[in-house]
Amino acid sequence: MGLKGELFLPRAYQTEEKNDITDVPGIKVGQVTLRKGGVNTGVTAILPGSDIFKQKMLASGQVINGFGKTTGLVQINELGTLETPILMTNTLAVGTCWTALTRYMLDRNPEIGLTTGTVNPVVMECNDGDLNDIRSLPVKESDALTALDLAEGNPPLLEGNVGAGTGMRCLGFKGGIGSASRLLELGGKKYHVASLVCANFGAFGKLRAGSRLLGQELKDAVLALAKAENNQLYARYQKDQGSIVMVIATDLPLSSRQLGRLARRSAVGLARTGSYIGDGSGDIALAFSTAQRVSHFAKEAESFSFLPDSQLDPVFEAGAETIEEAVLSALVHAETLTGFQGRRVYGLGDFL
Amino acid sequence: MGLKGELFLPRAYQTEEKNDITDVPGIKVGQVTLRKGGVNTGVTAILPGSDIFKQKMLASGQVINGFGKTTGLVQINELGTLETPILMTNTLAVGTCWTALTRYMLDRNPEIGLTTGTVNPVVMECNDGDLNDIRSLPVKESDALTALDLAEGNPPLLEGNVGAGTGMRCLGFKGGIGSASRLLELGGKKYHVASLVCANFGAFGKLRAGSRLLGQELKDAVLALAKAENNQLYARYQKDQGSIVMVIATDLPLSSRQLGRLARRSAVGLARTGSYIGDGSGDIALAFSTAQRVSHFAKEAESFSFLPDSQLDPVFEAGAETIEEAVLSALVHAETLTGFQGRRVYGLGDFL
Amino acid sequence: MGLKGELFLPRAYQTEEKNDITDVPGIKVGQVTLRKGGVNTGVTAILPGSDIFKQKMLASGQVINGFGKTTGLVQINELGTLETPILMTNTLAVGTCWTALTRYMLDRNPEIGLTTGTVNPVVMECNDGDLNDIRSLPVKESDALTALDLAEGNPPLLEGNVGAGTGMRCLGFKGGIGSASRLLELGGKKYHVASLVCANFGAFGKLRAGSRLLGQELKDAVLALAKAENNQLYARYQKDQGSIVMVIATDLPLSSRQLGRLARRSAVGLARTGSYIGDGSGDIALAFSTAQRVSHFAKEAESFSFLPDSQLDPVFEAGAETIEEAVLSALVHAETLTGFQGRRVYGLGDFL
Amino acid sequence: MGLKGELFLPRAYQTEEKNDITDVPGIKVGQVTLRKGGVNTGVTAILPGSDIFKQKMLASGQVINGFGKTTGLVQINELGTLETPILMTNTLAVGTCWTALTRYMLDRNPEIGLTTGTVNPVVMECNDGDLNDIRSLPVKESDALTALDLAEGNPPLLEGNVGAGTGMRCLGFKGGIGSASRLLELGGKKYHVASLVCANFGAFGKLRAGSRLLGQELKDAVLALAKAENNQLYARYQKDQGSIVMVIATDLPLSSRQLGRLARRSAVGLARTGSYIGDGSGDIALAFSTAQRVSHFAKEAESFSFLPDSQLDPVFEAGAETIEEAVLSALVHAETLTGFQGRRVYGLGDFL
Repeated sequence: MGLKGELFLPRAYQTEEKNDITDVPGIKVGQVTLRKGGVNTGVTAILPGSDIFKQKMLASGQVINGFGKTTGLVQINELGTLETPILMTNTLAVGTCWTALTRYMLDRNPEIGLTTGTVNPVVMECNDGDLNDIRSLPVKESDALTALDLAEGNPPLLEGNVGAGTGMRCLGFKGGIGSASRLLELGGKKYHVASLVCANFGAFGKLRAGSRLLGQELKDAVLALAKAENNQLYARYQKDQGSIVMVIATDLPLSSRQLGRLARRSAVGLARTGSYIGDGSGDIALAFSTAQRVSHFAKEAESFSFLPDSQLDPVFEAGAETIEEAVLSALVHAETLTGFQGRRVYGLGDFL
Repeated sequence: MGLKGELFLPRAYQTEEKNDITDVPGIKVGQVTLRKGGVNTGVTAILPGSDIFKQKMLASGQVINGFGKTTGLVQINELGTLETPILMTNTLAVGTCWTALTRYMLDRNPEIGLTTGTVNPVVMECNDGDLNDIRSLPVKESDALTALDLAEGNPPLLEGNVGAGTGMRCLGFKGGIGSASRLLELGGKKYHVASLVCANFGAFGKLRAGSRLLGQELKDAVLALAKAENNQLYARYQKDQGSIVMVIATDLPLSSRQLGRLARRSAVGLARTGSYIGDGSGDIALAFSTAQRVSHFAKEAESFSFLPDSQLDPVFEAGAETIEEAVLSALVHAETLTGFQGRRVYGLGDFL
Repeated sequence: MGLKGELFLPRAYQTEEKNDITDVPGIKVGQVTLRKGGVNTGVTAILPGSDIFKQKMLASGQVINGFGKTTGLVQINELGTLETPILMTNTLAVGTCWTALTRYMLDRNPEIGLTTGTVNPVVMECNDGDLNDIRSLPVKESDALTALDLAEGNPPLLEGNVGAGTGMRCLGFKGGIGSASRLLELGGKKYHVASLVCANFGAFGKLRAGSRLLGQELKDAVLALAKAENNQLYARYQKDQGSIVMVIATDLPLSSRQLGRLARRSAVGLARTGSYIGDGSGDIALAFSTAQRVSHFAKEAESFSFLPDSQLDPVFEAGAETIEEAVLSALVHAETLTGFQGRRVYGLGDFL
Repeated sequence: MGLKGELFLPRAYQTEEKNDITDVPGIKVGQVTLRKGGVNTGVTAILPGSDIFKQKMLASGQVINGFGKTTGLVQINELGTLETPILMTNTLAVGTCWTALTRYMLDRNPEIGLTTGTVNPVVMECNDGDLNDIRSLPVKESDALTALDLAEGNPPLLEGNVGAGTGMRCLGFKGGIGSASRLLELGGKKYHVASLVCANFGAFGKLRAGSRLLGQELKDAVLALAKAENNQLYARYQKDQGSIVMVIATDLPLSSRQLGRLARRSAVGLARTGSYIGDGSGDIALAFSTAQRVSHFAKEAESFSFLPDSQLDPVFEAGAETIEEAVLSALVHAETLTGFQGRRVYGLGDFL
């Protein structure tokens, strides 16, 4: 969804109407939101495209800071391919979502584990334990399967307090799901670079947005409200904590090595929103390209086409911009939420 | 359990009586074996020591070949610490074991997810789909919890067709759980280097054991039996396939960087048993040291002691030897098994 | 030297009087500047401390973007130690400086290559070919040795067009050597985190400084002057090009793994000055700690003390700040220079 | 040159007549040998093919153990390409060879440093200080240039005490240059996998060759001769020391990621010759493919063809075999040499 520009730099690159990851043709997102009592969590499912196991996509996973539990990176980086949809959820739900995604893949690929090898499920996570009763393990396999099924319908992408982002917080404000995209023109054709993030990182007071040091600007107002409401949480928000998981998608023809380079530029976007990549932050970026497929059953050499690395600067800059805007978009669209044990985190929008 | 020497080189280093990973003081192993109909699988649980979450151990995970789904490596390598027991199981049971291990940690650490962060479960896997009905997802959370509970009692370590090793095959023979240890003397003190592996890799005919090219020696005999029994599986065993997951433990004072160096020497042991580290093999090694703990709640600088790197050659050589012997021990102790869809894999012992 | 604050955020951490890398006790810097005709280049030598070969320092080298030729990282990352001074120079002078540094080490350590092993020289580089006749290979071994000798006298650290920075450009302005430091207080003691950079990266128009988008602000004025002076170079400066090499030093007790984490935070500082880490940029960060030494001849376990990772957030934030300020300081202190083939790059100070 | 089979396993794959790296079409090797007084060293130059800077080759450099000073890996791994010939030499000559190779590239590419960027010279090294007066820095730039020029004439590849291998020792015997190749047939076409190594690693007594534990077999004979000749060196040869640098070339269409996988299999070959990858060993493998070129000046997407990873097992096995045979070939072809300070290392051939 991105921003309307009010908080943001003039963009170096244009965006599409939707300004989110579904601008990349073929990508669909489904989300399940769980809100009941102290439970504020959910699942966000990203479908990279059809028949992903048999027709894999080139991909790379990069660890910006490894205090995280994302699964699947070992194999993605050995083979350079993504072979499942991507699930995002809360930290302690990784195992449940892993099993659900496995069942989903087994259902659609009767060969797996029988006449061919196994499958490498990708589950990304952040810790929403401030606002979610995370120890109760509220996410069920059925929630993950529902998110995957919803994605098939290609619904409009909601941001903020939705899916995996339901209980997240970021830079002292309510965080969650955010997304943004950029248009690039190469050789007369239009291509996209887009990101979807689950933003749950950063220290209160550090938020930056373009030329504004928003965290500093708004600090007094936030603390005054917290004091007025006897909100104890804001004492603790001095520390950089939490995480961000980031998916970057493109329809540009990039190799897995180049996608790794693109994924590492997520650090640029993060830094510009106020992260200094704290110790406790599991900052993980997964990039993939929809441009070409790698056949699971190929026996002979296959052809691929790749941009020269010397032409990647716009791709890198656009990629960094989408991370920056996706984080800000998550903040702008996430609303104040009172969650587990009555903890209350404010939406940035309340102060703009 | 290791070998009696009959297949093996004169060892460069001595071993203890048990000659397995439980020779390292404090390490305990529990296993649950599931055998019923086409189901031949299980769980092996390794307890590194008491109170591992609050008193972590230095550790490193190394990817020899990344066609695998082991969880937890991202965080282990960022922080250099292990904070849970280690589970081994079949590939598709990773999610279930991940959740079970999470519950186990939540039960023992009420702070997790409440007043402190989350936890990083380590689950390692191989694909036992040849002999196990892996698509039926037979491993339950309760199986993993039982393996963890059994480990507390510090039972004798069984090898071969047991726990995670129940349905594995290796180099054309029945594989499974194997373990071996070495004694090192430094500065007048005794230390241990030990490995436990779940061996499920390699191509038929490639087995090496010390100075013997066993795979070649035994090839005709195995194929003759396979033909006599109309065993179709041995046509397929030409290919290097499957995986090996390896845990290396020591009570030597090593840093996480040094443990990474030790873990990478697992490739030496593998190569000497006949692996050329095939494309499809998820060869993952996790090394940890019981010598020192890293306090979860430390606020001030803590002291550690490390061997100089220049003194690590015996450690590296001993480590490689334990991998080599653990693989051979798995082969020697695993018995012929007829499993899923009537597939039959022969135990090496039948041909010695 | 850092900034006086005029372009910069209120700092999150205090600095020392000198505000440069020599604030870390024991660190000395010497520089040789070569300016004659089209030659504008030099050598910057950083002495980490005395007797560094026999008493090594813990260190880590991190590749933010690998389009660079820095030597020594392979061994530093295997062993976690730095055993020579660090030289910075132009790209094509790496071999010459490598040999000079080798001679310097041989002179001071008669054991090297005779009764002990060899030595691992660290040479970092950027391409100053815009302003320097780089193909003439003007840097001689004697220049590197002079820089090393000068460093022994612990002269005040000059910034801008000096040493390796003489011919560099950055974000469309004249670049060069910059440095900054931060003070941290832990457990009642004062510690330092400091950086020295050779800044030669970035695209014209992208400069950011705290809350100001300086590149955009100044773009028209720079282009107007370039037009008035018929300065053709500024057409080409649209592209992100060049590199930055960064040394981060601290007297905090950090392990090599932790120093790697610190070094990776250099990306945060870079991003905040306007880099998006372009394809052609060799962005390399080397971090070391003066707090503890690793004895070359140690035979037995040695003791070390390390901060808990959970306490590293201020270290990371301060580290990122020193990179940010060092880059800006390089820009502020570098003056307009007309170099090779009459190319002219403007100093930022001319426009402030 | 490889072996005649007498020490070796029946090969899994056939070889060509020459059985060395020049079996890969287009690869040429030139060597300069320096032997005078205590000086026993040299330079080995590998030309991957014509016009390598403007038409780069896909490549990957892998660190098996990082106690080494090989240059160029940072950029090779970021960009996936090799853009210079490869030089091998002694450790302290790296800088000199780096500069010579730079001059060689500048001569052939007038754009470098002027209208295009710089160049990334690859220099690999081992420490021949036992047999060579390494501190006298006997290798001159002219030696490196001569080796490069000789290579253009495509002379027969000599092995053993030649070029960079002149003063090396390996597993307690005289080491040096060795090479071997394998033929693979895929889709009816013939391809090659070949290695050239400079072997200088390993501990006395550890040599393995196929099914023979040669080190053990020959130990007494070697020590008896050493005693008879009052050769003190063999006391010290208990320790694994020295290094091996390895170049693996193929005309198979592999990506840089796949070449990295191939390069990592060098550990398999090493282990089978008796290495346990000691602490002090700089074991570095560089793999490249001659099958396709990457244009330096490309502006638009380029097409490449890659084997599926699932078809790489024969490539991996053949690659490991060529490393194994290249090491053994170096040992077989290197003759007893009395070098620096009268130290004498025996050729393996004297004991066969």
